[in-house]
Amino acid sequence: MNLEQWRSLTVKQLDQEAKQAAELHQAQLTKPPGSLGMLESLVVDLAAMQGTVFPRCDNVHISIFAADHGVACQGVSAFPQDVTAQMVLNFAQGGAAVAVLAKQMGANFEVINLGTVKPTMHPGIINQIIAEQSGDISQTAAMTEEQLLQGLQAGKQAVDRAIALKSKLFIAGEMGIANTTSATALLASLLELNAEDVTGPGTGVSGSRLEHKASIVAQALTLHQGINDPFELLRCLGGFEIVAMCGAYIRAAEKGLPVLVDGFISSASALLACKVNPEVRKWLLFGHCSAEPFHSKVLQELDVEPILMMGMRLGEGSGAAMAVSILRAACELHSSMATFSDAGVSNSGE
Amino acid sequence: MNLEQWRSLTVKQLDQEAKQAAELHQAQLTKPPGSLGMLESLVVDLAAMQGTVFPRCDNVHISIFAADHGVACQGVSAFPQDVTAQMVLNFAQGGAAVAVLAKQMGANFEVINLGTVKPTMHPGIINQIIAEQSGDISQTAAMTEEQLLQGLQAGKQAVDRAIALKSKLFIAGEMGIANTTSATALLASLLELNAEDVTGPGTGVSGSRLEHKASIVAQALTLHQGINDPFELLRCLGGFEIVAMCGAYIRAAEKGLPVLVDGFISSASALLACKVNPEVRKWLLFGHCSAEPFHSKVLQELDVEPILMMGMRLGEGSGAAMAVSILRAACELHSSMATFSDAGVSNSGE
Repeated sequence: MNLEQWRSLTVKQLDQEAKQAAELHQAQLTKPPGSLGMLESLVVDLAAMQGTVFPRCDNVHISIFAADHGVACQGVSAFPQDVTAQMVLNFAQGGAAVAVLAKQMGANFEVINLGTVKPTMHPGIINQIIAEQSGDISQTAAMTEEQLLQGLQAGKQAVDRAIALKSKLFIAGEMGIANTTSATALLASLLELNAEDVTGPGTGVSGSRLEHKASIVAQALTLHQGINDPFELLRCLGGFEIVAMCGAYIRAAEKGLPVLVDGFISSASALLACKVNPEVRKWLLFGHCSAEPFHSKVLQELDVEPILMMGMRLGEGSGAAMAVSILRAACELHSSMATFSDAGVSNSGE
Repeated sequence: MNLEQWRSLTVKQLDQEAKQAAELHQAQLTKPPGSLGMLESLVVDLAAMQGTVFPRCDNVHISIFAADHGVACQGVSAFPQDVTAQMVLNFAQGGAAVAVLAKQMGANFEVINLGTVKPTMHPGIINQIIAEQSGDISQTAAMTEEQLLQGLQAGKQAVDRAIALKSKLFIAGEMGIANTTSATALLASLLELNAEDVTGPGTGVSGSRLEHKASIVAQALTLHQGINDPFELLRCLGGFEIVAMCGAYIRAAEKGLPVLVDGFISSASALLACKVNPEVRKWLLFGHCSAEPFHSKVLQELDVEPILMMGMRLGEGSGAAMAVSILRAACELHSSMATFSDAGVSNSGE
């Protein structure tokens, strides 16, 4: 597939009939209307996506995309670059946060290495190496168009594996030392904001190191200014994992697989996917609002009410994974609560 | 037990050693420090309460206290008074929201009817009838001191059953048509606020009916003004279920059973329990912030950061039940994530 083909993909329409049937069913459950708050709107959204009055989130697919970033050499992260590859192994071995959550919920869990400076060999890792790392965005473009297409394709393939496994909900997670720098640059460019206003601590830089990080973001924005096309932005300022998540979200919307978006980095991919095709937005639910300060602005831009707000800022898909239990409870309440007539409970006079 | 004995109960101390050990363990897990946000503080709090580095929330006990309120005859609720007894049956039959959530999480679940105008007979209901209903607080005291003591005792007994079943987390839920009127009056009195500023929609009254509800709250506040003692406030403005939850919270703090508080009504009971003995606060976690407008002020008063904010306003313990999955995930992450040294992941240079 070339970029023109990616741009012209048709997003699946939501099932309005299932949505209305779910709304009607909600209104009959033994509770004051609206009293389950967001749990009501979430299950109705899922009904429209899954095309059934009684949606389920039992079979969840979690794909973690990892990649190194050339800009890490600018000292923008609190952690050394080796950590990307070390964490890829930690995902595969089940020790990372999202791996623990994936096991707890019985999700399909996979780790895709798109390129790390240190190679990772483990039976639990899908190695789809694009390059050792992306280019340093403060000095050059992050990748070539061919590499961009490889990244998008890796995302598409992950969604296709999820569909083959009959998953009903897709989560993309990411790992890449310095990837908040890349995501911040992408989002600042998209939303026309200044680097110093939006650059946040990421894994935990502060003080003069945070100022330095902001100056690197500013440098990247100056070098790659005036770009409006979302794919060209991704090529210049992205990272392989950010590109892959963007490709995954577009593919999921095309095939009608509901997506639960994670935090700051994932939201950059989501916003870019929506710039490629605004219809993609219909297939996205948002797991949480991150503690990374810029995330709430990005969620506003996407017109999102996140499910959780617990001050998480880990990435990896961990915030979305936390929200799965909320979606599952919403589905369970919807399908198992008694109706007013079943239970012989009087409805309000209104 | 008389009121003096309730007042002089000694609250169990938290285990500071377990707390510090849990904090140390958290710092070694493969994530940037603080990046799991509230999940980190929650598991450390649970460690201090359960007295172990690795707390668990597998065995949860949910006690629903139901009672009718005389003030319902003033037309303060969107639902008829019969709904209290109907919902008690709906709890016992598994059709109510909190019953669905309790089953999903495998909790011990019990329903205690403290007095409904229509009697409820079902093997799943514990009938501990204090009276058909409490007195209309806009006209008279809600109950006698003897009834107050019976309510407190019912709460104590529920906690003792939870402990006998080796539960590690206690949730109290409530059902009682018109009980937001009672809780609003209690909280307005405690916080010295005006009825019209704090009266909210409850199950869903609005417009002139909401104004009417506020005027009934104001009438109750005028009739029972100048009371500072929390038990006397409960006697005059409470309901049997609100009293029982207060008794349960005090008993849980005495015995060292962690409590997950639900929404607006439960928070009234919690604040009163803390007025009886400020040390009770140490044993309380708060599941969510309700959509009932006054709830956020009450949480501020209790210095609480709630786990969830999803616009729920159902009561029944449903918001606390939703938060259990968050606590369980926090415990699982804490006990199952790899440490930096286990996984060979480099820590930050800081």
